[in-house]
Amino acid sequence: MSYTVGVDVGGTKIAAGLVDEHGQVIARERTQSPATDPKQIVRTIGELVRTLTDSQPVEAVGVSAAGFVDKARAMVVFAPNLAWRDEPLKRFLEEELELPVIVENDANAAAWAEFTFGAGEDVEDLLMLTVGTGVGGGVVIDGELVRGGFGMGGEVGHITMVPGGVVCGCGNLGCLESYGSGRALVRVSRELAVTDPESAKGLLARAGGDPSKITGPLVTAAAQDGDPFAVARLAELGDWLGQGVATLTAVLDPNVVVIGGGVGEAGALLLDPLRESFERHVTARGHRPMLEIRQARLGNAGGLIGVADLARHR
Amino acid sequence: MSYTVGVDVGGTKIAAGLVDEHGQVIARERTQSPATDPKQIVRTIGELVRTLTDSQPVEAVGVSAAGFVDKARAMVVFAPNLAWRDEPLKRFLEEELELPVIVENDANAAAWAEFTFGAGEDVEDLLMLTVGTGVGGGVVIDGELVRGGFGMGGEVGHITMVPGGVVCGCGNLGCLESYGSGRALVRVSRELAVTDPESAKGLLARAGGDPSKITGPLVTAAAQDGDPFAVARLAELGDWLGQGVATLTAVLDPNVVVIGGGVGEAGALLLDPLRESFERHVTARGHRPMLEIRQARLGNAGGLIGVADLARHR
Amino acid sequence: MSYTVGVDVGGTKIAAGLVDEHGQVIARERTQSPATDPKQIVRTIGELVRTLTDSQPVEAVGVSAAGFVDKARAMVVFAPNLAWRDEPLKRFLEEELELPVIVENDANAAAWAEFTFGAGEDVEDLLMLTVGTGVGGGVVIDGELVRGGFGMGGEVGHITMVPGGVVCGCGNLGCLESYGSGRALVRVSRELAVTDPESAKGLLARAGGDPSKITGPLVTAAAQDGDPFAVARLAELGDWLGQGVATLTAVLDPNVVVIGGGVGEAGALLLDPLRESFERHVTARGHRPMLEIRQARLGNAGGLIGVADLARHR
Amino acid sequence: MSYTVGVDVGGTKIAAGLVDEHGQVIARERTQSPATDPKQIVRTIGELVRTLTDSQPVEAVGVSAAGFVDKARAMVVFAPNLAWRDEPLKRFLEEELELPVIVENDANAAAWAEFTFGAGEDVEDLLMLTVGTGVGGGVVIDGELVRGGFGMGGEVGHITMVPGGVVCGCGNLGCLESYGSGRALVRVSRELAVTDPESAKGLLARAGGDPSKITGPLVTAAAQDGDPFAVARLAELGDWLGQGVATLTAVLDPNVVVIGGGVGEAGALLLDPLRESFERHVTARGHRPMLEIRQARLGNAGGLIGVADLARHR
Repeated sequence: MSYTVGVDVGGTKIAAGLVDEHGQVIARERTQSPATDPKQIVRTIGELVRTLTDSQPVEAVGVSAAGFVDKARAMVVFAPNLAWRDEPLKRFLEEELELPVIVENDANAAAWAEFTFGAGEDVEDLLMLTVGTGVGGGVVIDGELVRGGFGMGGEVGHITMVPGGVVCGCGNLGCLESYGSGRALVRVSRELAVTDPESAKGLLARAGGDPSKITGPLVTAAAQDGDPFAVARLAELGDWLGQGVATLTAVLDPNVVVIGGGVGEAGALLLDPLRESFERHVTARGHRPMLEIRQARLGNAGGLIGVADLARHR
Repeated sequence: MSYTVGVDVGGTKIAAGLVDEHGQVIARERTQSPATDPKQIVRTIGELVRTLTDSQPVEAVGVSAAGFVDKARAMVVFAPNLAWRDEPLKRFLEEELELPVIVENDANAAAWAEFTFGAGEDVEDLLMLTVGTGVGGGVVIDGELVRGGFGMGGEVGHITMVPGGVVCGCGNLGCLESYGSGRALVRVSRELAVTDPESAKGLLARAGGDPSKITGPLVTAAAQDGDPFAVARLAELGDWLGQGVATLTAVLDPNVVVIGGGVGEAGALLLDPLRESFERHVTARGHRPMLEIRQARLGNAGGLIGVADLARHR
Repeated sequence: MSYTVGVDVGGTKIAAGLVDEHGQVIARERTQSPATDPKQIVRTIGELVRTLTDSQPVEAVGVSAAGFVDKARAMVVFAPNLAWRDEPLKRFLEEELELPVIVENDANAAAWAEFTFGAGEDVEDLLMLTVGTGVGGGVVIDGELVRGGFGMGGEVGHITMVPGGVVCGCGNLGCLESYGSGRALVRVSRELAVTDPESAKGLLARAGGDPSKITGPLVTAAAQDGDPFAVARLAELGDWLGQGVATLTAVLDPNVVVIGGGVGEAGALLLDPLRESFERHVTARGHRPMLEIRQARLGNAGGLIGVADLARHR
Repeated sequence: MSYTVGVDVGGTKIAAGLVDEHGQVIARERTQSPATDPKQIVRTIGELVRTLTDSQPVEAVGVSAAGFVDKARAMVVFAPNLAWRDEPLKRFLEEELELPVIVENDANAAAWAEFTFGAGEDVEDLLMLTVGTGVGGGVVIDGELVRGGFGMGGEVGHITMVPGGVVCGCGNLGCLESYGSGRALVRVSRELAVTDPESAKGLLARAGGDPSKITGPLVTAAAQDGDPFAVARLAELGDWLGQGVATLTAVLDPNVVVIGGGVGEAGALLLDPLRESFERHVTARGHRPMLEIRQARLGNAGGLIGVADLARHR
């Protein structure tokens, strides 16, 4: 059996796992992320990996992070939450660990994991959307992860939905992320709780009467209890995401679309409206075999599992 | 030297060429297309191919057409202009020709030609848009043509630009094709010629004073002569196409975008506004290496050359 | 008691009524409209009026038609369905009838009727939308009908909802009429019946299985019987109209909005979603007294009653 | 000769003027605004008025402020910058001054001034847009100021331009103010100065290299010196405003549109693109007499002059 380590570097914590060739996580470690000091992050990753590989030698290490990674999977070109700019992470870590290292965007890694071991393991062409605070994603075509000509492909949250639309964190107007993300869910819920407190009263009660205390998990919990206001908010999100998946399908024509991320865990409350919207908006309806839209299976371990597997097949 | 034949089946004519392994067209044949009779089309293709291969044996035959082709490149699932529905073209032609045959979407074939022998021969990741009556296109990632999980990928003209927008021939509202195609160019030019004849007077004079006589080539010719109204129409088209390329780049991150098709031949009049619009709309501006947007080099022979090459590497 | 005659000139028929000063229609006449011959229309109106006034002298005659009427209420500047261009209708009719005549846009006349005798008789500021094949309307401010500086005000169906949106009959893109009219209801219902026949099966059954047989009254009837597909179509229409009313309210701040026209007779199926959409989209929510949105009371006699009253107060 | 006093209450200062019946300002006073204390504002207004009326008795006093004023022109219902909520300003001031007082929205007052003494003095139907930090405005129909059924009419900056568009301060998405205001001008200029510093280099140099130092007057000054980036920014603003005026014209059909406010002083740099955009977007082009779009003539004294005149004709 061959083993690799996957490391998922987030803004507040770093998680690492020893992963076998079936995508099983044999052992895990986790620690706080020293987010603002690149060198300290390298040392922290080194410690986590050494702990995991103490009694089990591994072939390689994969590191995933939210940000742009170059085509050679060596450099983090830009990672807004980690203060990384053109950070040669592969070289630093290979010096630290004396093991082969690859670096990958976290949503790409999660897509790869779902493709290899999860909700898309039966197909060759997959599109994944991770719906969390933002909207990320990854694309697999003919069994290969799409990294793009410069390593920046798969930014599915930044297709434009509305020209002149809501400002996105990327600087553009009207990105899918501006309408289909957890941040959008919270923004709209809070606005309506202020302007239409009667309709939002159930959700407001859960938030102690304070609109600014409304969070994504609170909306999902209320929707799961049948609160019509919260159900409507998730349905709106699903409607936008379905329109986005329709546009992406015109270009990519995947066999399966996998919806993951924290908001994606809302399940049918999000996925049913998403499917309905997709079916109304996809081009050449009635002339194409219908893809399946499925929920992710690997949860938030996906990134770590995916990047460990990508390191194996580097 | 190895030879193959490429056949481009259009709504009104069928063109065929004997192509060598450098993409050179050694000999050509062309005839009227018996568009409404699938069996007659097979026979006509057979005659063209036999003429071309009379003195020069070939390895294989590639056939391109505007329409959806299945994943196996054997069946035309839907071709609106050719009255084909689930047409097993590969099997019929292999029986007719006793040669290996592959079938491909025409815009995919053109993209492959530009990638292999034309404006994108120096890169591995290419996006092509063919701007003609409609907007077609093709995508090459890591040196492979993207065909999609069901063979229907690369329909870049059918990404949604405007929710609730102008009706598209595909049944959707607001597709890129509704704003960035030759048909859109003509529609807008005619409307404005009716409602604002003073501004359009130069173009109207070329159309004999009749707005319904305004055509795409007429607008391009007027623009090339400096007519400000016509220049503005092509700039609008470029603006929409630049927004579309920006969305496609978020997903595909190509090294090079190639603009072809009849309207694409307007050159800088279309491409300069397209580039400017792209730069204003692409996500992560300033944090990504900038792709190049280039004009196609192979003209309308691209489809034929591309499908001949795809047949060689079947 | 004072009497006037109101005449409503439509594309296919002409209706006339003898109206008292309480807006009661005492007698009616109706005939086919010789739509393409302006002179014949004048003679036909003359015959209808003479029949009605045979035993009852009247003060004046008002004529309403779909089209632009000049500020002096004398000339039909443009009436697309009646082939009128700069037609001096007032002069021709006064010569024919030897009575004072005024001409008015039909939706303006209907708004005036609802304001004076119908759903808005208790307020001073009213906005009416007539939702039929198109979307017309009229505006009353401080008890006066808004005719506009050139007589062309109140064209509430031609505010832009979606930049670059669905083409409108007026030549613009994205007008309210493109989304909120009976024509839009039919267009969307037919499209979906083709692309998603399963969801539309109830409606299709009523149309004998033929999507092109779907009409506005058919959708309304299906919705009244609880067909979920038809209910959803009217709710969409209401959603667009609510957004339009929100924009109009920012400018006009009416006390009451009256919804009339053939589609408006769908009642709560249209008005409830319209109200909900309005409340979500109106500016300064929570800081403004809420207007009421009411159904029209006078039905399709409104135009005739309104123009008769406007003739009285000429 | 009859005199009245006009008082313009802003967020940072209060200006007052003694105005004759020709709209001439005979004497002026100005002081800091004690913005957070409603009672102190009443006393400050009292002092200004007494100073102006010391040697010249007046008939009445008009007070204008940015905010919603009730139909009776007595109460400020909501004034975000002045901390006023349901403030009975008329009653307090009449007790303080022993003179008749009316209260009016400041943009309404400015529109009235341009109608009575300024750029619209020759017409009966006028629309004014004040393009400053936000977009305000006022409407005059048949020689009467449109106040709305609840006193909240004329909020022309809050018509929706883009469904799902840029968030507006009013809580809505996609208002005209989100695209056509000085705030929008600064937002877009700063964003582009960050993402495309090469194009913005002229403007950046004026801002000392710091995008956050870019202001509206800086953009206007650069545009007046011919800087192409700044010219393009004002043209964009004009394009949006032209679309907004087109929608407003469908409803109101004014004879003249007056553009005022600080940004409006950019003159032809704003008004030429605005006119061009209007002509492309107005409904029934070619079938309507064309209104004129003019620059305001009274500058920032308009509010004070207008409210003084409204007090005279109370």
